[in-house]
Amino acid sequence: MKHINIGLFGFGCVGQGLYETINNSKNFSGEVTKICIKNPDKPRQLDDSFFTVVPSDILNDAHIDVVVELIDDADVALDIVTQALKNGKSVVTANKKMVAENLEYLVELQKETGRAILYEGAVCGSIPIIRTLEEYFGHEPLNELKGIFNGSTNYILTKIFEENIDYETALDQAQALGFAESDPRLDVQGYDAKFKLSILLTHAFGIHVPPSQIVNLGIDRLKPSDLEYARDKELQIKLVAKAVKSEGQVYGFVIPQFIKAEESLAGIQNEFNAVSLTGEFCDEQLFIGKGAGSLPTGAAVLSDISALSYDYQYEYKKHYNLGKLPFSNDPSIQVYVSFNRPLDINLQDFESLKSKFFCFEQSYVVGNIKLSRLLKASWRENPNVNIIVQPTFDQEENQRLSIEELELEVSDLRKGQEILEKISL
Amino acid sequence: MKHINIGLFGFGCVGQGLYETINNSKNFSGEVTKICIKNPDKPRQLDDSFFTVVPSDILNDAHIDVVVELIDDADVALDIVTQALKNGKSVVTANKKMVAENLEYLVELQKETGRAILYEGAVCGSIPIIRTLEEYFGHEPLNELKGIFNGSTNYILTKIFEENIDYETALDQAQALGFAESDPRLDVQGYDAKFKLSILLTHAFGIHVPPSQIVNLGIDRLKPSDLEYARDKELQIKLVAKAVKSEGQVYGFVIPQFIKAEESLAGIQNEFNAVSLTGEFCDEQLFIGKGAGSLPTGAAVLSDISALSYDYQYEYKKHYNLGKLPFSNDPSIQVYVSFNRPLDINLQDFESLKSKFFCFEQSYVVGNIKLSRLLKASWRENPNVNIIVQPTFDQEENQRLSIEELELEVSDLRKGQEILEKISL
Repeated sequence: MKHINIGLFGFGCVGQGLYETINNSKNFSGEVTKICIKNPDKPRQLDDSFFTVVPSDILNDAHIDVVVELIDDADVALDIVTQALKNGKSVVTANKKMVAENLEYLVELQKETGRAILYEGAVCGSIPIIRTLEEYFGHEPLNELKGIFNGSTNYILTKIFEENIDYETALDQAQALGFAESDPRLDVQGYDAKFKLSILLTHAFGIHVPPSQIVNLGIDRLKPSDLEYARDKELQIKLVAKAVKSEGQVYGFVIPQFIKAEESLAGIQNEFNAVSLTGEFCDEQLFIGKGAGSLPTGAAVLSDISALSYDYQYEYKKHYNLGKLPFSNDPSIQVYVSFNRPLDINLQDFESLKSKFFCFEQSYVVGNIKLSRLLKASWRENPNVNIIVQPTFDQEENQRLSIEELELEVSDLRKGQEILEKISL
Repeated sequence: MKHINIGLFGFGCVGQGLYETINNSKNFSGEVTKICIKNPDKPRQLDDSFFTVVPSDILNDAHIDVVVELIDDADVALDIVTQALKNGKSVVTANKKMVAENLEYLVELQKETGRAILYEGAVCGSIPIIRTLEEYFGHEPLNELKGIFNGSTNYILTKIFEENIDYETALDQAQALGFAESDPRLDVQGYDAKFKLSILLTHAFGIHVPPSQIVNLGIDRLKPSDLEYARDKELQIKLVAKAVKSEGQVYGFVIPQFIKAEESLAGIQNEFNAVSLTGEFCDEQLFIGKGAGSLPTGAAVLSDISALSYDYQYEYKKHYNLGKLPFSNDPSIQVYVSFNRPLDINLQDFESLKSKFFCFEQSYVVGNIKLSRLLKASWRENPNVNIIVQPTFDQEENQRLSIEELELEVSDLRKGQEILEKISL
């Protein structure tokens, strides 16, 4: 096994986890020889001689075999990765945004340069999902991929249901314990999970789908009335990323979903992540593990580095060998949509509606809507609106409400609210 | 990618599943060219020209690259595999007994011949556990491996607890539905799970442990009183295979275990299998999937065949690179032991006892016993005795009963039973 000299960009949580993992691994032959950091004044645990602020000290060092990129900024990361590959170095990265937004380019760049970029640490921390999709399910047609790809939101949702608290209280707790960032928007609005889904779409179905084409909705608008609705029906809410092959195309999204207690994803609690694959032959496979954290992600990065010691590369088998499947937002999904005032949503955007509850404080409808409509609907950005996927549960009557009649009811509701407001003025 | 010509031994459930999987796989380049069977008179779905009863028709055919061995008989299988490797062919097998009992020899034979033998299909069907241990956790020290490795027994145990039925009724149902063999002993007595554990010990901890050194107890002596005990305490029973690294050594066993509803293995139902790994960096990883069946196992075998197309071999990294850990049966485990009559067990075999219930129909004790004692104790073969691992649950008082005093009680109980029997005569 080759000895590997590693040049590291970034020495934050994952970088330090990687350093510790390497030092404690019994049969890995390699070492971090140089670390490029942004802020040279920050106190560090290692000797000054390890550090540099000049990227070319790593990128142009002929003794460095592998560049490990663990910084936050996706644009700077792309520059580093590009230069490293062009300089004949292989790359390991955990930057999900950078990989998701540039995967087609990165695949081409690997072909051009003959060097590899591995990014297992970018998707669900220590769960070996990309490697498993590449190696083990390379020949098996997959029908569905779904899971819980974000540990922070899953921690928050777990606390909400375990401790009967509201979203804001649970977010505060998660931040205090380090399970949520001080700026949690990437997590709680579903972007982080969407980047991961975009990457997995390439390895599971062979298609590159830019994150901008995928609908993502978060958990940050969960109202107490939404939680009451879920608790009444003995449902949990999870932030689910999902991709489905259906009728010769693939659709996918990241949206909170009502989950019954007996479903496989219901048991995924706290900061754990899960990926479920359903194949044509193997049936459902579920992989569960810690999706983030210094050591779990460090271990995933180390596993990639060691794969480079035997010249491992992703082959993108499904991308090259399968008839290309189109990604489509045409399919419709059944959603529960709660809103504060009738003007907040446009009922005409729905394909059909099956139930509703109108009241002065908080109303909701349940109906089918095309993902393409959801992607464009301006009302989905309204902070008063919350959207949760509601699967059709067993033994449910399949009634169909008239959208026109509901429009009239909504109009009455609006008038009533206006009158009430005038009175209270 | 090389085109692979496959010579197949056996055309039962898994063999036919493999054939179907290959025919429906979109990007696999290979075909089954010859099938060696035992019984030429059985009606087959394929043309006669595919079949032979002469092993050398495959083993000496220079056009065949890969031999796939899917027969029942472990001794015959070993001969086939040995000859195939010596003739320069790589091998894929799903024969857990053959692999477990000969792993050290098979590792040497691979070194000698330079050919590979892969056996993912032998362990937990479609769960890619060996490949994941080899590739992904090659560098990570593992602390624990446990799981549910046998689908038939898990199906039976699920039905027992879901439908409130006894062992015999559940076994009959499982056999009627094809989830249990007509001779279920290998499954229900824990041998099948033990073969798998023995194989995983090599890939997880780098040690070869012959199955004969591992304690296995089954579910075939579960009495209604044992089930009542579990239901009273809101526990389930699962047949758990487990290996633990502790104090510089590894111990392991296959024994039924009481499981609390919130434990990860409690959610594994019906014919599903699960493998849980706990690593030093990655924390707990859980892999769940169908452990058996024609297509899931066929898919695992195909995945191995396709890995051979790029000359993949197991590297046995942990075996070669780690300081060899000794396997030991010296550690003691806490067990619940139920028995019919006091003479059925020997209380002196226990390290300590913490609770007991004596009555005329069915009695039990809970205490600690060394695995080495359990391995040798003749009373564990007694059909009236049932043993279940009982972990120490939270908030349990840690009382210690005097073995001597219990001996006296047991002696009284015995006298009482003898008197009762005389009366009823």
